[in-house]
Amino acid sequence: MAAKYLTTEPTKQIDTIVENLQPDKVVVVTDMNVLAKVIPALSSSRIVSESPCVAITPGEEGKNLQSVVEVWKKLEEAGATRNSLVLNIGGGVVTDLGGFAAATFKRGIRTVNFPTTLLGAVDAATGGKTGIDFNGLKNEIGAFHNPSNVIISVLPFASLPDEEVMSGYAEMIKTALIADRSLYCRLLNPDDVLNNDDLLGETVEQCVRIKEDVVAQDPQEKGLRKILNFGHTAGHAFESLRISRGLDITHGKAVAHGILPALILSNMLLEFPSMEVEIYRNFLCENYGGALIGCKDVKQVIDLMSADKKNARHGEPLFTLLKEIGEPVINCKVDSSELSEALEIYIDMCG
Amino acid sequence: MAAKYLTTEPTKQIDTIVENLQPDKVVVVTDMNVLAKVIPALSSSRIVSESPCVAITPGEEGKNLQSVVEVWKKLEEAGATRNSLVLNIGGGVVTDLGGFAAATFKRGIRTVNFPTTLLGAVDAATGGKTGIDFNGLKNEIGAFHNPSNVIISVLPFASLPDEEVMSGYAEMIKTALIADRSLYCRLLNPDDVLNNDDLLGETVEQCVRIKEDVVAQDPQEKGLRKILNFGHTAGHAFESLRISRGLDITHGKAVAHGILPALILSNMLLEFPSMEVEIYRNFLCENYGGALIGCKDVKQVIDLMSADKKNARHGEPLFTLLKEIGEPVINCKVDSSELSEALEIYIDMCG
Repeated sequence: MAAKYLTTEPTKQIDTIVENLQPDKVVVVTDMNVLAKVIPALSSSRIVSESPCVAITPGEEGKNLQSVVEVWKKLEEAGATRNSLVLNIGGGVVTDLGGFAAATFKRGIRTVNFPTTLLGAVDAATGGKTGIDFNGLKNEIGAFHNPSNVIISVLPFASLPDEEVMSGYAEMIKTALIADRSLYCRLLNPDDVLNNDDLLGETVEQCVRIKEDVVAQDPQEKGLRKILNFGHTAGHAFESLRISRGLDITHGKAVAHGILPALILSNMLLEFPSMEVEIYRNFLCENYGGALIGCKDVKQVIDLMSADKKNARHGEPLFTLLKEIGEPVINCKVDSSELSEALEIYIDMCG
Repeated sequence: MAAKYLTTEPTKQIDTIVENLQPDKVVVVTDMNVLAKVIPALSSSRIVSESPCVAITPGEEGKNLQSVVEVWKKLEEAGATRNSLVLNIGGGVVTDLGGFAAATFKRGIRTVNFPTTLLGAVDAATGGKTGIDFNGLKNEIGAFHNPSNVIISVLPFASLPDEEVMSGYAEMIKTALIADRSLYCRLLNPDDVLNNDDLLGETVEQCVRIKEDVVAQDPQEKGLRKILNFGHTAGHAFESLRISRGLDITHGKAVAHGILPALILSNMLLEFPSMEVEIYRNFLCENYGGALIGCKDVKQVIDLMSADKKNARHGEPLFTLLKEIGEPVINCKVDSSELSEALEIYIDMCG
């Protein structure tokens, strides 16, 4: 597995990267939006233009078993063997779904991911978690299956709405906080990073490599990999609360806000420096707006955290916290009075 | 992973083995035949009697995506989590299918296999190859997913027809030939082994452990694991030829016959002792009848071998051969004149 940021025009390099893997057949998996908006810009790639292609319904709606069956059938039509390859071109839904179809075709064929969203690039495209929704449950069916390569190109990010870019940016900030102070300091200035394609590409590549390193040490999330959930315990609860009220929110915005209570708890329990909490608060309010919850929501948020199947055990929410920037501690238990206090401080700080 | 032969009545030990794995929920996967014929004998097991159960259509007909969906739904109904477990009770179809459903539920939950056929016990239940048929192709969709435990009990074998028992027995003979001379010598007397439950149970356990050791060294069949295909290059071709002519044959009988040409080639190319070829011929003709093909079929058999996706490369059949009993050599290329000669010798020897 190796992420590669393409400094030059990506289309020829897609061909080089895929051809180096010497697949006997390639099938492209994408969605209808990407097919219309991104694929035309890649038409000079021989691989992209000549390979059979499955375009699924965009968004969560298309992330189902029926779409997987379509990919399997396309692989069969193409005469795919154990030595064939799936090239996923799209956001997180496409890389999750195409990855799962590849993981299960003839007990696993290779994939290359070409993420077309910033969030997809720094999150779903790397790390080998693949899956689909089933019976209304997100990622209920899936497999761990690492891509052979993740191609990072900023080309498709140009057409993303700002809030989608900032959603991905939040996962980059999270990655920096758990692993690399100097990367974090750079990311505190989003205008500088986002307005310079090369700097953005390199920074994305750096985030992807950090994730790859963590995943290589703990592919199936037995322990260490949980550091990647930093900010997600409160973040998921904020996201669920908004969704239950029919309010939109991007995943990244919820995570960006979820990070602040995690830093406050880190300060309360692990002596994480107050000054750093303050610096993050300024970044957050400037780029992701004010608090997502009010004091009256605190109890409900705590209940949501306690029921989170990923970040809770025996009904007790578990946190990844920081001793310092780059020094995460997993599985921190926090009692409900501490949690309540941290959420109230968060509301005060961002109110 | 650990295979365990249960010398005593198996039902209580099923409970002990499963309870030691501390699953929060258990779902049993079986088929309608096993549900009627074997499950009643296990009713004193708390796990078997109290766990929700999915019984699929018996045989290859039920080995499809729809049955997997049934298992996934049953797991959801049962409130299964990442810490739950699938207990497969059945032949190869059940352990393949239940194993695949478990491999993909929440990106993989544990399985325990309780094989109810001798062939299933020594073949499909161990080694982590799981899968289903798709679009008419066998095992087209699947995953590598090792069971946490394989429970060996001879109890369900008593109700199997003789030809099913001998089908499983052929895989035991194959296992012995690639790994263990003294096991092989014991297996040359099927009446002794099959008429003594404890001896049979221990011998099956020995075969399963040999397979587990091989698989542990090469879980995804990149190299060494191919020794388990000994006898299968010709065996698959014999099987396909019979099926194409509308004639029934058990997998094991085809393998038992496929072993003889492999031993003849081993003698021609690797100086495998002629006397051993002769000993095997006597065992074969006594227990599995005369030659499965005539001289006029030789060309068609060679064509079938050359098209075998598992045991051929670039249209050339590849063989696992033996230098001695217990000394296999994988990926042996054999030219078509040698192959033709070996098949003619096989026909002569068993004619």
